[in-house]
Amino acid sequence: MNTRRDFLQKLTLSAAVIPFLPGYSPSSLTDFSNHPYQGRVLRVAILGLGSYGTRVADAMQSCKRAKLVGAISGTPAKLKEWQSKYNIPEKNCYNYDNFDQIKNNKDIDVVYVITPNALHKEHVIRVAKAGKHAICEKPLSVNAKDGQAMVDACKAANVKLLVGYRMHFEPKTLEVIRMRKDGEFGKVLFFQGLSGFTIGDPTQWRLNKQLAGGGAMMDIGIYSINGARYMIGEEPVWVTAQETKTNPEKFKEGVDETIQFQLGFPSGAVASCLSTYTMNNLDKFFLNGEKGFAEMQPSTGYGPIKGRTHKGELTQPHMTHQTIQMDEMAAIIFDNKKPVVPVDGEEGVRDLKIIDAIFLAAKTGKKVSLTV
Amino acid sequence: MNTRRDFLQKLTLSAAVIPFLPGYSPSSLTDFSNHPYQGRVLRVAILGLGSYGTRVADAMQSCKRAKLVGAISGTPAKLKEWQSKYNIPEKNCYNYDNFDQIKNNKDIDVVYVITPNALHKEHVIRVAKAGKHAICEKPLSVNAKDGQAMVDACKAANVKLLVGYRMHFEPKTLEVIRMRKDGEFGKVLFFQGLSGFTIGDPTQWRLNKQLAGGGAMMDIGIYSINGARYMIGEEPVWVTAQETKTNPEKFKEGVDETIQFQLGFPSGAVASCLSTYTMNNLDKFFLNGEKGFAEMQPSTGYGPIKGRTHKGELTQPHMTHQTIQMDEMAAIIFDNKKPVVPVDGEEGVRDLKIIDAIFLAAKTGKKVSLTV
Repeated sequence: MNTRRDFLQKLTLSAAVIPFLPGYSPSSLTDFSNHPYQGRVLRVAILGLGSYGTRVADAMQSCKRAKLVGAISGTPAKLKEWQSKYNIPEKNCYNYDNFDQIKNNKDIDVVYVITPNALHKEHVIRVAKAGKHAICEKPLSVNAKDGQAMVDACKAANVKLLVGYRMHFEPKTLEVIRMRKDGEFGKVLFFQGLSGFTIGDPTQWRLNKQLAGGGAMMDIGIYSINGARYMIGEEPVWVTAQETKTNPEKFKEGVDETIQFQLGFPSGAVASCLSTYTMNNLDKFFLNGEKGFAEMQPSTGYGPIKGRTHKGELTQPHMTHQTIQMDEMAAIIFDNKKPVVPVDGEEGVRDLKIIDAIFLAAKTGKKVSLTV
Repeated sequence: MNTRRDFLQKLTLSAAVIPFLPGYSPSSLTDFSNHPYQGRVLRVAILGLGSYGTRVADAMQSCKRAKLVGAISGTPAKLKEWQSKYNIPEKNCYNYDNFDQIKNNKDIDVVYVITPNALHKEHVIRVAKAGKHAICEKPLSVNAKDGQAMVDACKAANVKLLVGYRMHFEPKTLEVIRMRKDGEFGKVLFFQGLSGFTIGDPTQWRLNKQLAGGGAMMDIGIYSINGARYMIGEEPVWVTAQETKTNPEKFKEGVDETIQFQLGFPSGAVASCLSTYTMNNLDKFFLNGEKGFAEMQPSTGYGPIKGRTHKGELTQPHMTHQTIQMDEMAAIIFDNKKPVVPVDGEEGVRDLKIIDAIFLAAKTGKKVSLTV
């Protein structure tokens, strides 16, 4: 006789697609234990059918409250493939020339934009103008100004804009945030985030300044920025940064390879972070307070996340991050649910303001003040 | 029947004083397995009989090649206590007024100076002028200029000057250094050192600028500086630093509470470090290379040190650090043995140059260049 715990552990190992999942663990997440879900389902089209788009599409097959119903791509063969693989009707498929017509499609509620960073702005604004809600993969854009323009466009069109932050719904992460809020670490003093990996193919868009808007910081360093903010629970007031480039052939002008950055918070807490495209064995978070600590490694990978605090191992079950994310985003869009950590466009702009400041601090060698 | 392993583990747990220890593990350390040691023994007087002096005296009871034979203190009662506790003859006891007479004492080879940082300079120079070798507790002094004066004085007096760096002989540390030298981590890219603890009594000398010359950096941050240098195996060429003070009552002007600092190395490797007197749960080292990593926690405490690399747990046996240190220092002084990591006065000055640069960088907010 298998216990629920066995079941969840097997699920973790197999990452299998299970139609009826037990309710997610933390109380802040929607409880789907009264399955099957009877309410309104968020009908999602994905714009950009690359590897991460495919990951989201796969994860959505386990969603309770969100359903993949449409696809937008410049490659007809990909659309064909998605139609058959995910059972998407022909009428819900678009290309980059005609997707503005989605405004006439009553069967799609939201478009999830998963294109290269520098294209987010145009794509999200077109989605908004078509009257559809937008979910935009992180980073929201390539700088705070463009991000703000996206926020403004969505507001003007009266649609919601969310950013594809998946860690903000991850059960172990939420447990550490709950402990911090409940004072279990005492006064929080220090956060350390080490984010990075050794990137491969030098010709990929992530190493092209025109498409990526930067290098490691936009892609992976942003996780340490997120972590510093949601783990400490404050907004940084200053930034310092130091950039190092060991391979200028691969990491060209404007594409950051390695940046160390430090953040200072109003309470006096500080954060020390690393963003890099040139080393593995990272993905570590460490939160330290007067009464205790949390450490996580891996801390932001696709999972399972592992971690412990001064009280012991974190035992919240692993669930595919994008599955939880999309179910929770359905609740945010339809019910105005307030997530523990915001995932709206303004949150995306906050991260971009910090990234802008990190780039400036790295360039000038000076401490950059941030206004909250 | 107990195995050698059992024996060493019990030793670790009990920190017992064992007269005949098995040979130390790494090949770079002196092998005392042909005990008892028959050669010349280093006869040591300790100057400054505080808590760390007592720790060294206790550890020396297990030395093979070094012997505690003298004591120098301003407190007659302490000298009485040490005489009986460590079997020290009356004739080898001095106070701060008369210890220059040690030059006429043929039974003492070296004086180990364990006084507050700001007094090291005067005490070491007097030891040198008395014609005795000097071991000086870290930091060598309160700035590089004073440290250099001490080096110069010892050179002029034709005596040796060593710094009481105990980690430089610690078996797990030496194994990680060996692995790095043998290329087992590949190209080294990153070192992280988190050094600190919550300091107690606000009236202690360590929080008095006049005696300590600083705060956490002089006492505990220096371990991360040491670690960055011996783990990466290069000398830093730049320093940046950010200071934070949450309790200016306790940590007065010139006494640093928390400093984050970053070091850049000629190869492009970088280090990210924390020095603090205001948090626990630290004492972490992390070395990352293209082919593997090492992490240690605790990394510099009195032990046992714990750590693992990409190849698995570090299993070198724990030995009381100060015992190994003093036996190895006997070999350095008598045999001109070259330790894996230098512990001479010049090494102490190198650390102080980096500390000077960190203080300057923290004050000015600017990157400070270092010349090797």
